[in-house]
Amino acid sequence: MTLPDRHSAECLAVNSVLARVGDKWSVLIVRLLGDGTKRFNEIKRAVGGISQRMLTLTLRGLERDGLIKRTMFPTIPPRVDYELTDLGRSLWAAVEPLGLWANNHVSDIHKSREKFDKKSKTGK
Amino acid sequence: MTLPDRHSAECLAVNSVLARVGDKWSVLIVRLLGDGTKRFNEIKRAVGGISQRMLTLTLRGLERDGLIKRTMFPTIPPRVDYELTDLGRSLWAAVEPLGLWANNHVSDIHKSREKFDKKSKTGK
Repeated sequence: MTLPDRHSAECLAVNSVLARVGDKWSVLIVRLLGDGTKRFNEIKRAVGGISQRMLTLTLRGLERDGLIKRTMFPTIPPRVDYELTDLGRSLWAAVEPLGLWANNHVSDIHKSREKFDKKSKTGK
Repeated sequence: MTLPDRHSAECLAVNSVLARVGDKWSVLIVRLLGDGTKRFNEIKRAVGGISQRMLTLTLRGLERDGLIKRTMFPTIPPRVDYELTDLGRSLWAAVEPLGLWANNHVSDIHKSREKFDKKSKTGK
């Protein structure tokens, strides 16, 4: 039984995007910037648990992908603002349903895991 | 400047889900099963480049999360069917916009990367 061709093309496209989006930091930052322009330190505070280096790398990757725009102001100390581009905003809109789903179903998933592990343990 | 509290709660939920969904195989399988019930070998063929072991592990993880249902038929050789549960179907619906976005914008991202790399190289 062969599956429709569109799957192979879609798989490639989705894989390529998931290399970026599957990286949880990127999604969190895109979702955060959906609220508006933020400075580096604001992003760092809001996205708990990310190192300075990882945040720098992630922001650079998002800029390279054309998803965010970086603006530097020559103040002392220099101020760096990050905002979504139009492309980034369209990704934000596409990721939003997944964020809402996550919020709504996290407890369902945890319950299902407990049930599964109990069943596996008793061998039923 | 403090950010709204909902971000911390949402970040946790999204992180937890992305541990599953950020895994590209899971997303591809969920999207594939959106078309209907599939057998193990059909999934293996459709999701190119996945090893037997990785597919087994991914399917087990999705079953544990309550996203897919596994049905075994005691034929020779045994036939094993996989289908989305209601929860899996709701994830499928939430992931679909991202899949469409990926299809529509893969070339935008590639173009942006080329431009960025050229600019970095010339130091402009």
